[in-house]
Amino acid sequence: MQIIKNYVEGKWVAGEGVETEVFNAITGEKFAEVSSAGIDFEAALAYGRDKGGRALRKMTFQERGRMLKALAFYLLDRKEKYYTLSTATGATRVDSWIDIEGGIGNLFANASLRRQFPDLPYYVDGQAAPLSKGGSFIGHHIMVPKQGVAVHINAFNFPIWGMLEKVAVNLMAGVPAMVKPSEHTSFLTECMVKDIVESGILPEGAIQLVSGLGRGIIDNLTNQDVVTFTGSAATGQKIKASSSIIENSVPFNLEADSLNASVLGEDAVPGTPEFDLFIKEVAREMTVKTGQKCTAIRRIMVPEKLVEDVQNALTARLAKTTIGDPTVEGVRMGALINQLQVSRVRENVELLQKSQATLFGDLDNVEVMGADNKKGAFMSPILMLNNDPFNKTDVHNVEAFGPVSTIMPYKDLNEAVELTKLGKGSLVTSIVTADNKIAREFVVEAAHMNGRILVLNNDCAKESTGHGSPMPMLTHGGPGRAGGGEEMGGKRGILHYLQRTAIQGHPTTITEITQQYQVGGAQPEANPHVFRQHFEELTVGDTVFTAKHTVTTTDIVNFANVSGDNFYAHMDETSLDGTIFEGRVAHGYFILSKAAGLFVDAKKGPVLLNYGIDEARFTKPVYPGATIGVRFTVKEKIDQEKRSEDDVAKGIVKFLVDVYDETGETVALATILTMVKKIDQSK
Amino acid sequence: MQIIKNYVEGKWVAGEGVETEVFNAITGEKFAEVSSAGIDFEAALAYGRDKGGRALRKMTFQERGRMLKALAFYLLDRKEKYYTLSTATGATRVDSWIDIEGGIGNLFANASLRRQFPDLPYYVDGQAAPLSKGGSFIGHHIMVPKQGVAVHINAFNFPIWGMLEKVAVNLMAGVPAMVKPSEHTSFLTECMVKDIVESGILPEGAIQLVSGLGRGIIDNLTNQDVVTFTGSAATGQKIKASSSIIENSVPFNLEADSLNASVLGEDAVPGTPEFDLFIKEVAREMTVKTGQKCTAIRRIMVPEKLVEDVQNALTARLAKTTIGDPTVEGVRMGALINQLQVSRVRENVELLQKSQATLFGDLDNVEVMGADNKKGAFMSPILMLNNDPFNKTDVHNVEAFGPVSTIMPYKDLNEAVELTKLGKGSLVTSIVTADNKIAREFVVEAAHMNGRILVLNNDCAKESTGHGSPMPMLTHGGPGRAGGGEEMGGKRGILHYLQRTAIQGHPTTITEITQQYQVGGAQPEANPHVFRQHFEELTVGDTVFTAKHTVTTTDIVNFANVSGDNFYAHMDETSLDGTIFEGRVAHGYFILSKAAGLFVDAKKGPVLLNYGIDEARFTKPVYPGATIGVRFTVKEKIDQEKRSEDDVAKGIVKFLVDVYDETGETVALATILTMVKKIDQSK
Repeated sequence: MQIIKNYVEGKWVAGEGVETEVFNAITGEKFAEVSSAGIDFEAALAYGRDKGGRALRKMTFQERGRMLKALAFYLLDRKEKYYTLSTATGATRVDSWIDIEGGIGNLFANASLRRQFPDLPYYVDGQAAPLSKGGSFIGHHIMVPKQGVAVHINAFNFPIWGMLEKVAVNLMAGVPAMVKPSEHTSFLTECMVKDIVESGILPEGAIQLVSGLGRGIIDNLTNQDVVTFTGSAATGQKIKASSSIIENSVPFNLEADSLNASVLGEDAVPGTPEFDLFIKEVAREMTVKTGQKCTAIRRIMVPEKLVEDVQNALTARLAKTTIGDPTVEGVRMGALINQLQVSRVRENVELLQKSQATLFGDLDNVEVMGADNKKGAFMSPILMLNNDPFNKTDVHNVEAFGPVSTIMPYKDLNEAVELTKLGKGSLVTSIVTADNKIAREFVVEAAHMNGRILVLNNDCAKESTGHGSPMPMLTHGGPGRAGGGEEMGGKRGILHYLQRTAIQGHPTTITEITQQYQVGGAQPEANPHVFRQHFEELTVGDTVFTAKHTVTTTDIVNFANVSGDNFYAHMDETSLDGTIFEGRVAHGYFILSKAAGLFVDAKKGPVLLNYGIDEARFTKPVYPGATIGVRFTVKEKIDQEKRSEDDVAKGIVKFLVDVYDETGETVALATILTMVKKIDQSK
Repeated sequence: MQIIKNYVEGKWVAGEGVETEVFNAITGEKFAEVSSAGIDFEAALAYGRDKGGRALRKMTFQERGRMLKALAFYLLDRKEKYYTLSTATGATRVDSWIDIEGGIGNLFANASLRRQFPDLPYYVDGQAAPLSKGGSFIGHHIMVPKQGVAVHINAFNFPIWGMLEKVAVNLMAGVPAMVKPSEHTSFLTECMVKDIVESGILPEGAIQLVSGLGRGIIDNLTNQDVVTFTGSAATGQKIKASSSIIENSVPFNLEADSLNASVLGEDAVPGTPEFDLFIKEVAREMTVKTGQKCTAIRRIMVPEKLVEDVQNALTARLAKTTIGDPTVEGVRMGALINQLQVSRVRENVELLQKSQATLFGDLDNVEVMGADNKKGAFMSPILMLNNDPFNKTDVHNVEAFGPVSTIMPYKDLNEAVELTKLGKGSLVTSIVTADNKIAREFVVEAAHMNGRILVLNNDCAKESTGHGSPMPMLTHGGPGRAGGGEEMGGKRGILHYLQRTAIQGHPTTITEITQQYQVGGAQPEANPHVFRQHFEELTVGDTVFTAKHTVTTTDIVNFANVSGDNFYAHMDETSLDGTIFEGRVAHGYFILSKAAGLFVDAKKGPVLLNYGIDEARFTKPVYPGATIGVRFTVKEKIDQEKRSEDDVAKGIVKFLVDVYDETGETVALATILTMVKKIDQSK
């Protein structure tokens, strides 16, 4: 008998006794036992905060991102091992792909987010806030890693994705994790965590695994910890209201199964590609992962005149679903996780059947290929019809967490919106329509009750990631019944593990803290010229004060000739009536270009190239006769790793270009982005 | 006897019986009674969601902002009325200024945020997320107003600011409010709400007032409502854990009083301006609002060698605090809110006195000017000293919500950080230092336990807004004991009242929903040229496909001559060894300028000016011989109100400039910002 272990305080330990017996979903055989009883969670959490947290907090976002990328490659190399084990959960290869490679994809995606973060262990959020007329007092926000542990309580359906989509995010944030997968599928999580530990890629203490029930974790939380819960609303709500969570103001992210809907647009009649897309999408969402997905389509909303067409097409398609042992060729749908789950789904289907007709499937009969349908946790897809969904409302409340869904008619788009709302908050709703006006109206009206809305049409279908898939760059979580949580979403997700702190002071102080030059801060003169300095030598705030140039009409004419931009305000002095201009005005592009002429030190040196301009603003018209100069300041430095051995070692340097005129007023302000060579060509 | 009323369902109503008797803080006389018993909160909340919410949701952010601005001016005109009433709360003119004009300032500040929002009733959050290789499927996020009511449960100390800092935000978001101030000071809130209602500036149902205890509000919440609570941690936590909040996943923002600290830097020895600033700031924070501020300094952290100096200076300063009737000339500190509060503070001070010495002040004696110290809720400032703050820890746990604070010594900066952390989470900490390295180290180490950190030095002191003042553009709220909430913070605050929904589909669909052009979306040819169309006529997505231009070495030389930019990569073909360039490369600024030459329609027309460039990226080097063209697309339109009658009616139009070469690849991408005239000059 396999004993599934826990990984706490840097050691693999078996819990006391047996909390849970683990069965093979296909054969019904018991193959493992698991427990986390007897573990000292107070010590384990303290170890995570101290050992793992301390190490992660020292790393910059760039370093954490590179760590995740390395881990992703390491695990991808070992993926077949996880696929093999995954069969015991009842999953097909396609189901496991979502769990395993979808999970690893989250590591890659989060790793790539490092480019959106500063080269520091903490994040600088948004723009400075001016708080004074004279500019000597400003505000800003930094976001530092919480000095706690991210405790992830996950559901049984995605033992790998559930871990990776979450730890990718907290590790990027600089926060260690304690992962508690479901006891029923923790054998797969355990297998991957073993590889993670063996890889040595994460610092010690960055990840701990609780494979059993994890009783006692919650009681030992502090105000710096963060809890995420994915699973049933009832359990999640109970934990959320527990005293240690409430009293310590522990952030609690709840993501509960919800009654998600898919809506067929009124335009998508039989014969349109969208009709076929709808049938395909609904059938897929009913059967993938044997319907055990928190995002699966439970409610199928169809224009009333199209109910029969949908019914026929969907039944025909479901009839082709081959169920059985996923290792057998041709099998499209595997088993539920275990017999307990079969009986739970059965109970809910029977409840639903009291108020609605069954169109397809039979709770007592299921044809199975390559397995024993009595021993494995098999179940037929069940399709129902609810003809009165505003009055027979069980369908909006009862979730059968299996291959189960219900068709219901709607009269007009407003009714479709109202029906989706009866689910009291969903993770996702999809609408299949070729009409973007319908799409917009539906999305805007239904968004307040949804965490995600997919608009599917023929133009995007080929590349669509589908109704059921949360994407790392998009938020996942929905309001109300779906738990009110929000995770992933690219940079947004990482911010959940950081404490946002408003900081106030003189711009020089805020420059020092943010390592981003703040307007009004000290500008020591750069020596030598910043274009003569390597990446490592540049200091934020250092400034080149350029020579000046008096703008002439000839400048304007020459610039118009070179660029071809003869816009009337520059070229036609008879046209200025009713404009804000008092005379022919210099091109904004000329001012920026001339500024470059003033600040550039032309000779070959460490500056490799200028690859962009951000937030350029022309704040005051420049007329012939005005004399302009530039304050050119190192604004921010971001280290870059070498992509290959041959690559030039370099970093990104942002410069603030402040062009002022003879009155001292700023006429243009911009941030330019450059690549600057390092002295040390080994990094 | 004055009966304080409630404003619900569009009517002013008195509650049943008397829930609370209200006393004048200075004279001790009872002058009002209040109750909200008998009110049907289920109906009131439904009314708010339907009547107020529906109206607000129809408005764009621009319209809501203008509404707030009008309201701010309206209330400012009536401010003296509020000042007069405010005396009964024990407040001085300075205290009331924070409450009244500070509150109204929040309306102005939030109104001005409209410029950071699209011209829609909902917000488009961040950037599109590419989800496919071919670009036919992308993701984005919109944020729509929650279709509920913002229920604000406020503390007694800021009856006006407490309301306005919150409703300014939810109204901007398009969500109506139900305000429940403390029963003890709701007479002042009532007075202002009467003016708000009479102004007719807000739509009906946008604001409701519960002046009494508000029993039953919480039981009637739905998943679309949002609750904010400001006050004691114990009460807040109880409400947060209530079943209707947990079961409906109601967002709950808790902002609790915390044990905030101020730290004197080791450099700030007597004789430095920072030492004096510290003494002044601490004394002010102890006495303003008679210490009844959730942000007040309760813990004064001083380098051990400076304890005696601080003790002497602070005692001397506190001795000069004249206490009494705020309407009497020379009075600097008023009364606590009532006798009940006096006895509460007294209890906590007595508890603290068990473990620490009292340096200044006497619980039993207070000299009062112009009032009867037996009848009014007066109290002397109390300054204590705790010489062993790591072991005598009541000071980090017991909050005396009055003019009470404790000095404690620290050995080094690390100890100062550790001491602040013993407060288990604070709204704000300040550090007074002239050394920005000390400032940075302290801020970065202490940030995870603080919602805000002020760094005070001589350079910013004149314009500093002080330790105690939350600012509308900065977040307010702190982790742990401070409640774990976050409010205000400029745009961030508004987002708390919006539901973020990920949207997925074809770029044309996402363009339609976001009303922002998404790369890959349809680009119908503009006819006539977009420069010939007025603001109202332009359609997002419409595109000008320009003529092309073949870049020559002469272009590069001419551009170098006009701009003066002779950077080696453009001008010196012998210098390119070891660079990424294969030959002399055209200036990025030339590409942008030439693009303008191609897309500009020069003749006078509706386009008034180009005021900026965002996110310009040079994605591929352009060499002589390359032929470039531009796709110039309407990206986004934002309506602008006229500042005066004479102003030209116009709007902001953002254009996407996509410069491509003969291979079809993009060589530069930028967003330019223009002002375009309207046809209708009346708006």
